[in-house]
Amino acid sequence: MSINPRELRYEVEELYYEYVECLDDDELERWPELFVEDCLYKIIPRENFERNLPIALMRCESKGMLKDRVTTVRETSVYAPRALRHLLSNIRIKGNENGQLHVQANYAVLETLSDEETHIFNAGRYIDCVVREDGRLKFKEKLCVFDSLLVPGSLIYPI
Amino acid sequence: MSINPRELRYEVEELYYEYVECLDDDELERWPELFVEDCLYKIIPRENFERNLPIALMRCESKGMLKDRVTTVRETSVYAPRALRHLLSNIRIKGNENGQLHVQANYAVLETLSDEETHIFNAGRYIDCVVREDGRLKFKEKLCVFDSLLVPGSLIYPI
Amino acid sequence: MSINPRELRYEVEELYYEYVECLDDDELERWPELFVEDCLYKIIPRENFERNLPIALMRCESKGMLKDRVTTVRETSVYAPRALRHLLSNIRIKGNENGQLHVQANYAVLETLSDEETHIFNAGRYIDCVVREDGRLKFKEKLCVFDSLLVPGSLIYPI
Repeated sequence: MSINPRELRYEVEELYYEYVECLDDDELERWPELFVEDCLYKIIPRENFERNLPIALMRCESKGMLKDRVTTVRETSVYAPRALRHLLSNIRIKGNENGQLHVQANYAVLETLSDEETHIFNAGRYIDCVVREDGRLKFKEKLCVFDSLLVPGSLIYPI
Repeated sequence: MSINPRELRYEVEELYYEYVECLDDDELERWPELFVEDCLYKIIPRENFERNLPIALMRCESKGMLKDRVTTVRETSVYAPRALRHLLSNIRIKGNENGQLHVQANYAVLETLSDEETHIFNAGRYIDCVVREDGRLKFKEKLCVFDSLLVPGSLIYPI
Repeated sequence: MSINPRELRYEVEELYYEYVECLDDDELERWPELFVEDCLYKIIPRENFERNLPIALMRCESKGMLKDRVTTVRETSVYAPRALRHLLSNIRIKGNENGQLHVQANYAVLETLSDEETHIFNAGRYIDCVVREDGRLKFKEKLCVFDSLLVPGSLIYPI
């Protein structure tokens, strides 16, 4: 990937925007397609990440497992309707080695239940590895490291 | 608009940033100038949008009506002073046909009353149509689709 | 700085992203390096800013004072562990005169205490002056004008 940094950040941003769109606009079936076959997706509390503790709230180790997760979401019936809305900031390419981009970004997920005010559901940092496959960028690794120690009770959707 | 996608997104972002600046920095009189004469501006709850129900919280069908709205805001006296602050994310050009750009973005409006903590006043999605007029981009259509079913009580300012 | 506006905004964004990274990832020692020697850093409530009142919650008038502030943070012991997370939006170059860029941006700082939900700690506007030194952009002046009149009790970290 020898294109200039500005062009590369543009491309990376487009990947993240599409990622968010899949989740926020309830097009979850498109979400696994943003990952390569052999991938890793994890949602972990910050403390566990910093202490290198393995426990994750969600863990998928292949695109197949991501698809299973989508099926699970679709089959979950006891889940009050709500809107999720991502705000991303600070999308930054921190390294570019052997065709692997190391990307970080800040995120906040806002949640709105039908008869409640909008609140911050989860916030933290993406620590990701992005690669090029068939001409377009995809996630090889995506860690969602959230700032709280409190486990969000209704974590069903990916972050 | 045959310029490259990266340049086009830059231009679109500048339009959105100026839009936000008008609202957040209380330069409301500049706000209608970001629309073409024959325009549509609506604030609607998500559910109404999804079910194609016509009811909107705010609806302006021309630049003249936008200017009227500004006058209304300026004449409203029973409105506690507050700061509004937009956070935008995920500004995305979803289509480009016949000189019309279809753009979506996530937004959150934070509100701070003078003796209260900052809270999320309204969050949702812009679903817009942007065109070029006299060399610069303007809104032809701007839908603010907010996530809540609760109608924000103090909705006087545009979103 | 005669480079094109798009390239310049890219460079400015990279500066802001690095700024946020220093604060959010607890790499505070790198924070003063983003300022020139002869600089000004202030955190002020919006009302004081608008009325030109001099009182600031934090005020540093040189890079040396910024470094002192870092020392103070590191030595503060009665400060419950928490995560801070910046969301920036609307980074805009408002002027470019005599090698000085006038830049504004919206910010929100989210705070997460270990056993609490994430909330908005502080929100407002950066009103900055950015210059080029040794080939890279740095802050000459950074005003954090926050929207509340309430003074955030636990303001120890820079914003």
